[in-house]
Amino acid sequence: MADAAGREFFTTRTVADALAGFRPRRRTGPETVPLGEALRRVPAGPVTAPHRLPGFARSTVDGYAVRAADTYGVSEGLPGYLTVAGAVRMGTEPDTAVTPGAAVTIPTGGVIPPGADAVVMVEYTAEAMPGTIEVVRPVAPGEGIVRADEDARPGDEIVPAGRPLRPQDLGMLAAAGVTSVTARARPVVTIFSTGDEVVPPGAAELKPGQVRDATASALAALVADAGGEPAFGGIVPDDPSALEKALRGALPASDVLVISAGSSVGARDETATAVARLGPPGIWCHGLAVKPGKPTLLAECDGVPVIGLPGNPRSALVVFRLIAMPVIRLVGGCTAPPPQPSARAALSRDLPSATGRLDVVQVKVSDGAAVPVFGSSALLSVLMAADGYIVIPEEATGLDAGSEVNVILYG
Amino acid sequence: MADAAGREFFTTRTVADALAGFRPRRRTGPETVPLGEALRRVPAGPVTAPHRLPGFARSTVDGYAVRAADTYGVSEGLPGYLTVAGAVRMGTEPDTAVTPGAAVTIPTGGVIPPGADAVVMVEYTAEAMPGTIEVVRPVAPGEGIVRADEDARPGDEIVPAGRPLRPQDLGMLAAAGVTSVTARARPVVTIFSTGDEVVPPGAAELKPGQVRDATASALAALVADAGGEPAFGGIVPDDPSALEKALRGALPASDVLVISAGSSVGARDETATAVARLGPPGIWCHGLAVKPGKPTLLAECDGVPVIGLPGNPRSALVVFRLIAMPVIRLVGGCTAPPPQPSARAALSRDLPSATGRLDVVQVKVSDGAAVPVFGSSALLSVLMAADGYIVIPEEATGLDAGSEVNVILYG
Repeated sequence: MADAAGREFFTTRTVADALAGFRPRRRTGPETVPLGEALRRVPAGPVTAPHRLPGFARSTVDGYAVRAADTYGVSEGLPGYLTVAGAVRMGTEPDTAVTPGAAVTIPTGGVIPPGADAVVMVEYTAEAMPGTIEVVRPVAPGEGIVRADEDARPGDEIVPAGRPLRPQDLGMLAAAGVTSVTARARPVVTIFSTGDEVVPPGAAELKPGQVRDATASALAALVADAGGEPAFGGIVPDDPSALEKALRGALPASDVLVISAGSSVGARDETATAVARLGPPGIWCHGLAVKPGKPTLLAECDGVPVIGLPGNPRSALVVFRLIAMPVIRLVGGCTAPPPQPSARAALSRDLPSATGRLDVVQVKVSDGAAVPVFGSSALLSVLMAADGYIVIPEEATGLDAGSEVNVILYG
Repeated sequence: MADAAGREFFTTRTVADALAGFRPRRRTGPETVPLGEALRRVPAGPVTAPHRLPGFARSTVDGYAVRAADTYGVSEGLPGYLTVAGAVRMGTEPDTAVTPGAAVTIPTGGVIPPGADAVVMVEYTAEAMPGTIEVVRPVAPGEGIVRADEDARPGDEIVPAGRPLRPQDLGMLAAAGVTSVTARARPVVTIFSTGDEVVPPGAAELKPGQVRDATASALAALVADAGGEPAFGGIVPDDPSALEKALRGALPASDVLVISAGSSVGARDETATAVARLGPPGIWCHGLAVKPGKPTLLAECDGVPVIGLPGNPRSALVVFRLIAMPVIRLVGGCTAPPPQPSARAALSRDLPSATGRLDVVQVKVSDGAAVPVFGSSALLSVLMAADGYIVIPEEATGLDAGSEVNVILYG
């Protein structure tokens, strides 16, 4: 749609619409990552066991490798007697087989010797005389043993594609001898700050009306949390041509572009103008039914998702968590996002809300109560004071004091 | 205590005892960290605002800076008329004051000009004739404005000591012009693996009875998650003298020592022997009332906490999460640990448990049900299949099917 002056108009979309409908097709390519750097990296494909694990039948207890049949019917009152034929040493192949009526000493983790099909715990044995033990509890075949392929059979999937690697996944890969992983490259997310009033955080002296760039540092941290690699595009003045040029320059080396827009209506229009010129298919929506965060712009230009954020730092961070982090995960191939810390709490007061709009309310949590922290969306201190936030969904007209709410906790 | 043979004995402690009583005094020193690398770092002291923020009174809306008194009583039916005396530009000092009967155009974020005490949103105005606007809604003093010190007054604490820095904290620090932070150094956690059967993950061919070191890679990841810096001490054979020598060598450069012990009784005794010789005050407990994880050793030697883990990889990871991660956070000065992801779920089956012992049960979560994943504690595949774990406390004798449980989720 365009009006008589040629300006494009776009309808406001809901957050649910955006999450379902704004699904850029871009995916980062695979790269090889050594195991020591693979924590939270996203495997590009499933990893399978190259061989069986643990690789040999092992004892799970300290005791005696035996033939289970030799222990049938034994008890405290009527122990069985077995001849100790040898001992298994850790990390070596057993040199003694277990024949009927014999036992072989074995430590936890030792190789089950030939002929044995169970291990009796040392606690259920006693030395009857040198070289002979008495056994006071029977064992079933397989007891006290993990099979050679019980942790994995060759070809078993040990790590799925798309789920960021967890500490135990690295352990399993190490056990299997997999010392590097084919992972999706971290999406490069280039962050631009716009606004004639914005200066770098390191600026020594500010002129009246200038502010230091708070948003870019916070966004870079959220990019890292979403598995991306932040890149700073710099601070661009409120000028569509300068912004277009800056964005165009970053396009080839970026997987996602993020614009922390100026906060005035004019600055927002300039962002839209610059993004609309950047490449097809262009703007997907300009305006999101969320409070705070309405002046959000979502676009895809020449295969790169472009996200224009509201100018207020707090609004920008809210929208980034709701919309941009899922997009970064999508581009980075993460199909199983890590769980978010959350807590159930009772709302301390009534919260009104308009239907058709999602509300994000910052809260402190204490003694099981979620206490809203209010203040202008221009204020960062509200986010400093908050432990997390609650979401009032589009269809709700508000929440009553005492309602049980789910607080997404900041970590 | 010592028996006739001179061996030391130690009573088993509960997990609650260990968390309350094993509180090493060691803390890492401060270091300067640039803002761009400060995410999740732990401030060594509170950071205060060097000056007021935002630093000047700003408009929170697009509109007109006015004297509130000039708008009293206006309405749609009886608008007030004001002369537009000038315009504020972003990032610059206003060159026009607001006198009675006058208004100055101002964008969101602009500097409130002298004389004005409120901003009327543009939506509540209309151009009556060139140079004159009509105002249809009154504003109160302060409306549409954030004060010069509303985000922070000079000296206000903007970031507390001891809480890992969150994305929004970095934003606030940037806004305040704080481009580096004095943070506690990451605790260096040296990880030793012991066992004659253990070979590095990269070993090409294994001899019968050998296993690749799974635990060290997983522990290194958990160290990083706890804010520490993992260092690999190497694989040490089952020999107390060799272990003592290796530990002693690592002591000066370590803030915490971790020993992934051999799994046999003999190997555990050897770990205790080596640790006992390392330095005073020595072993705090040898044996923890937790399943899995009983053969855990906690010590402090020459000011360095020493944690001996059970030999089974799964038991080692359980104990590391329960006990070692809190110790690493403590040493690293983290007094406000980040929240853990968790979910409420209904237990799918009865779980028996012994009183006086804490049980950690791995579970899958699906459709609101927590389904226990069973298997020998020698099996890593149990941890691969699990989404998280539940804790059955010391005082419980088990949990009934259908009980609501809190699942700590792996992320």
